[in-house]
This record gives sequence, C-alpha cells and structure tokens, in this order.
Amino acid sequence: MTTTPSHEKFNDELWVWGKAAQRPRVLHTMVRVRDLDESLRFYIDSFGMKAMGQRFEFEESRASAVFIGYDDYAAGNCLELVKEWDVNRPYTQGNGYGHIAIGVPDVRETVERLRASGTEITMEPAVLLQGGPHVAFVKDPDGYAIELIETRQT
Amino acid sequence: MTTTPSHEKFNDELWVWGKAAQRPRVLHTMVRVRDLDESLRFYIDSFGMKAMGQRFEFEESRASAVFIGYDDYAAGNCLELVKEWDVNRPYTQGNGYGHIAIGVPDVRETVERLRASGTEITMEPAVLLQGGPHVAFVKDPDGYAIELIETRQT
Repeated sequence: MTTTPSHEKFNDELWVWGKAAQRPRVLHTMVRVRDLDESLRFYIDSFGMKAMGQRFEFEESRASAVFIGYDDYAAGNCLELVKEWDVNRPYTQGNGYGHIAIGVPDVRETVERLRASGTEITMEPAVLLQGGPHVAFVKDPDGYAIELIETRQT
Repeated sequence: MTTTPSHEKFNDELWVWGKAAQRPRVLHTMVRVRDLDESLRFYIDSFGMKAMGQRFEFEESRASAVFIGYDDYAAGNCLELVKEWDVNRPYTQGNGYGHIAIGVPDVRETVERLRASGTEITMEPAVLLQGGPHVAFVKDPDGYAIELIETRQT
C-alpha cells in the first residue's frame, strides 16, 4: 500500500466521485456478490440501472468492482458490486444491515415484471401507512433485501 | 396490513421521497442500530449529516426509524437508522454487505477529527490507486464499516 500525495501524480480517471466537492455526501453502498454477471443483469434489466464506465480490478485483493446506479459516480446513489475472485460460497448477511431502497414510479408494475423474471418477492406491494406510497420487498440474486418505494402518485 | 389505494386517502406527509418521479433511483440503505441517539450523534456531529424531519414510530413492529443525510429524502443518498425497541444485543453483519461510502473534502482531516472523538480507525488514510483520492475506513458505533473517499483535489 503506497501513500502517494495525490497532487504529485494526479490521475483524473480515478477521481470518479468528483474532485471539487466542498461538502460531504453519501456515495454508495457496497455489497459482495457471487456472480457479477447475474447481479448486473438483475440491476440493469430489472431496474434500469447502468454500469458505470470503469470496472476496477484489484489484483492485490483479488476482487473486481463495478459501480451501478442511475446517474454517475459523482451524483452518489450508487451501489458497488464486488466479486471476490476466490469466493463462491454464499455470503451471510447478519441481522444488522436491513435493505437497500429503490424508488420506482410504479411498485406494482415493477413487482409483476420482477416476478415474471423469477425474482423472489418477499413482501407483496402494500400501503403500510395510510395514504402513503406502496412499498414492496424483493430479493436480489444474492438474497439482499431490496425495498421498492413508489415515487409517483397515481 | 391494509392495502388502501393511495389515491383515496392521500397523505402528503408520507410521500417524503417525492410523488412525481418518472424514473427510478436509489434512495437509502437501512441499518439497525442499538442506540439511536449515539448513532445520530456520530453521523451528525462527525459527518455533518442532518436528521430529516420526521421520526417514524412503527408500533406494530416495535421500531423507530430516522432518516439522515446531507440533503433530503427525495435527493436520495440517505441512511435509514432503525432502532428496534426490544433489541439490545449487538447486531451481526455477516460477510456480504461491505460498507457505506461517504465522500468528504478532506479524508485526513476527517480521520483526525474522528480519532479525537474516539472513533475506531480501521484503515488509515492512504492512496490505494496511484494518483487517485485518499481513502480510509472507520467504524460507526455499531461497527458498520464506513469508507471515506476524498472528493476534493488539494
């Protein structure tokens, strides 16, 4: 691990989260996945996310990382999917982390589409707080809980 | 659980994530915490986040939830902190979820401030990819891994 002062050999391509921010912001949540292609298909095909340009290959830690989301690195709101090259067993999730929430215009339509493609629906669309949006829960390919929250009043 | 069509009894206060979004976006990551006040102090005092207006009290599931972040619900990039009223044991984290990343203008200054307030630093600030930003890892009060990424070139 080398601590090179960043101003000496500045590599613009590595400052994907921006280089002029004066204030902090939440950037992404990282989850480890068993099959990067399957996870990318899930988040891209089912949720319309896109993979951001660069795929990071960490030779030293033997892992690959792809960032996905709806905007770009600097906008935050991203997920980092990490594939450890030597790990094929399922990951455990503990009971601390709860879920990752995605706002979608139509929760019921999204759930039907996910169901048709074989996704496990763990809570059917429902209005939990009277007058509030529909929410639902599904599982991603590794079993991570994804909450869907309706963001468009119909 | 009641599924009331949302257009019948619309409660504007519950549509905190917006009600006109035509496209999906990542909204927040939820983590369970043992001591809501301690966690709020950590994220507010050390990171400058703010608690969003409403504290949700879920009588049925016996839990409270507070959303925190730098902007507002609709902007996404939030964390949802959940306190289960009847749980006081430490939560387990498994090995699937990795971390939550926060971009800060000055990683080294942030780490020194966190260290002074007793936060455990799990990886000292370092440039991992030549010419890239400083990154560091710290633990929040429940042990969740927080990655700090420098977002301002100095």
